[in-house]
Amino acid sequence: MAPAPVDHEARRTTLAETVVELVDEQGLEAVSVRAVAARAGVSIGTVQHYFPTKDAMLMHAQVLANAAVGARAEAAAEHTETPREALRAIILAVLPTDEESARVVRVFVAFETRALHAPALAERARRDNSELRAAIEHLLRLGGAAEPRLNAIATIALLGGLCQHLLLDAAACTPEDAAAIVDLLLRRILP
Amino acid sequence: MAPAPVDHEARRTTLAETVVELVDEQGLEAVSVRAVAARAGVSIGTVQHYFPTKDAMLMHAQVLANAAVGARAEAAAEHTETPREALRAIILAVLPTDEESARVVRVFVAFETRALHAPALAERARRDNSELRAAIEHLLRLGGAAEPRLNAIATIALLGGLCQHLLLDAAACTPEDAAAIVDLLLRRILP
Repeated sequence: MAPAPVDHEARRTTLAETVVELVDEQGLEAVSVRAVAARAGVSIGTVQHYFPTKDAMLMHAQVLANAAVGARAEAAAEHTETPREALRAIILAVLPTDEESARVVRVFVAFETRALHAPALAERARRDNSELRAAIEHLLRLGGAAEPRLNAIATIALLGGLCQHLLLDAAACTPEDAAAIVDLLLRRILP
Repeated sequence: MAPAPVDHEARRTTLAETVVELVDEQGLEAVSVRAVAARAGVSIGTVQHYFPTKDAMLMHAQVLANAAVGARAEAAAEHTETPREALRAIILAVLPTDEESARVVRVFVAFETRALHAPALAERARRDNSELRAAIEHLLRLGGAAEPRLNAIATIALLGGLCQHLLLDAAACTPEDAAAIVDLLLRRILP
């Protein structure tokens, strides 16, 4: 019997998921072709076949990580009725307030930081940020906010900073504090 | 003639500065005992004498990096007259709007991210964040802000997020945008 054909795209994704797991558990420093091969139970040559360079591997994992953040945001906005409700739902869905969201954000933060020294990752981070900014700005316009462009940047910046606070010091900034801050923000921005 | 006595504290600081330079230029992944020894022009044994573990080395460098952020903030607040002016000056001094401030913030961000997987770095990051939060909260109280604790967290979160935006995508968020956002925030928070 001939061997089943290999689904290369699925294998590439599986390896990228392994990278995401390593980043979540140990940080981006822990990622190497060797570590990914060991964890995925494949040879170093197999990893190199799918990702010729470490950068290629990280980029694929970054796409997965950012898509996970985007998917949470979109799902949260789906059943809302007003721009305010949609914004609130998106922000609360992204904030790391449980194990699953913390995992997603930890990985996202790792890639954002690595992007400061990796032009290809920075390019992708800028593109994804720009999409998020456009979506938030659109909602702010719909809701009648003043200065929608600046307030969209401010909203994303606040969200990013709250993520870092929640991950690093949940005693000083509890999920309830973060939710109250989001409500303060929305009351200030939206009429 | 007897050799001049070695100033151990100065040497330790010099090595920690070398770590900070490496983090600024290449990211935290580039730091190793070997890389620091090569750059500082000393033996691996010398580095290990001052820093028995990589974590010890990183912690010392983190103290330097956080102190640099704190020094910029304090210097900026020195000649201000009102709580609003002090807050504005502190925030604008920390934002990475020139090469020197960008260097300081890049290193700070690298350590904050590493702290997510390094308990000792997280402990120091929490302590420094807590001091900054207390200072901002104090200024907000003096200025008559409502909800000073929550607004202090929000201010620091916004500052952190704006730093990331400026470092990663200065085209989408210019220094002028960041300054305008800070003014929007202060107008909303302070009466």
